[in-house]
Amino acid sequence: MSKPAVVLLSGGVDSTTTLAIAKSAGFVCHALSFSYGQRHGIELAAAKRIAAQFDVEQKILEIDLRAFGGSALTDDIAVPKDRAPGSRIPVTYVPARNTIFLSFALAWAEVLGAQDIFIGVNALDYSGYPDCRPEYIAAFERMANLATKAGVEDKQRLTIHTPLIHLSKADIIKKGLELGVDYDLTFSCYDPAPDGTPCGHCDSCQIRAAGFAAVTQDVRRTTHV
Amino acid sequence: MSKPAVVLLSGGVDSTTTLAIAKSAGFVCHALSFSYGQRHGIELAAAKRIAAQFDVEQKILEIDLRAFGGSALTDDIAVPKDRAPGSRIPVTYVPARNTIFLSFALAWAEVLGAQDIFIGVNALDYSGYPDCRPEYIAAFERMANLATKAGVEDKQRLTIHTPLIHLSKADIIKKGLELGVDYDLTFSCYDPAPDGTPCGHCDSCQIRAAGFAAVTQDVRRTTHV
Repeated sequence: MSKPAVVLLSGGVDSTTTLAIAKSAGFVCHALSFSYGQRHGIELAAAKRIAAQFDVEQKILEIDLRAFGGSALTDDIAVPKDRAPGSRIPVTYVPARNTIFLSFALAWAEVLGAQDIFIGVNALDYSGYPDCRPEYIAAFERMANLATKAGVEDKQRLTIHTPLIHLSKADIIKKGLELGVDYDLTFSCYDPAPDGTPCGHCDSCQIRAAGFAAVTQDVRRTTHV
Repeated sequence: MSKPAVVLLSGGVDSTTTLAIAKSAGFVCHALSFSYGQRHGIELAAAKRIAAQFDVEQKILEIDLRAFGGSALTDDIAVPKDRAPGSRIPVTYVPARNTIFLSFALAWAEVLGAQDIFIGVNALDYSGYPDCRPEYIAAFERMANLATKAGVEDKQRLTIHTPLIHLSKADIIKKGLELGVDYDLTFSCYDPAPDGTPCGHCDSCQIRAAGFAAVTQDVRRTTHV
């Protein structure tokens, strides 16, 4: 099998694991990353390293979400630290970001003749973003199948794959380790120091740390048995 | 009433008429235009003139659809001339273009607190593009209402308005003339000469010409009665 697929790659744990899963399933992966006015370019540097290590084609699109603002990641709004989980959708939510990302993925998929798009959204250990939920992904897929020439004229059915959607962060990491992912290449922090040191206190740092802690605990437990 | 709305504005007949309709309905319009690597910037200059004449805020986003290509409007593919209507979807189709445009409109709408987006798609006198059909728009609207913080947390229902979707080109022009649209400001040609002269033979020129011819004929008929 050598079916092409577009994989959204931010350079974090989830998208990197998703790329590993897509590649191990035999897809010829085309990684799509965005320079969207996020607060730092460290994330994008990670995405480049990962695409190179996985030896996949990568496109990096510049889109200016700072033109709209409205998020701690694209505007001069402070990234919340040590936030209690489960409360309202935080200010790190970027309006319509996954919809924009998936729309570009749809365009590239059509040009490549690909019927498969992979996105590492996760409905469990996440920040409550609405565009990470299964019902949102299903609605996007339905819309996408009405949107394109490939869908209408060539009856090509497009699938949005979300292999992580029901996994805990620990299970995502375990899956990635099984597939040989080097998580040292990935980057998660929303608000790193200028030298690239993760803050350790934003949602993303905390979820990452808890995930790795759970995996380590599991490994210790297994070793002791 | 002074509800905000985002209006997609390309600078052609349809989007300009749509802006006139949204404004006459009392919306405070925010025009969104794109520099997307289309073959010429004349269209964008028209969009700027129109936004200024209508005295509405305008954002012009740069997005590089040439990164993907796959269309006569974003790649080195010839624009078809004197094409018979009703045949297959032509090479002027830009993969996922309306999905990308509407996704950015969704982002801006959320930041503005707007629950209304206007797009001048048309399912009658058009080139057969899949992302101009009512079923596509309905699916996008459904997805959009699951995608955003505004939709999920604040229960704001987003509507995609398509006031032209069932009108003929002649009826669109008549509607615009009633609302005082100056169509001299608009630009439709896919493939103008370097000095900005429309080619007169692409789909867009032909549909525009037929529309104005029908309106003129109607006016003559009415005058003679």
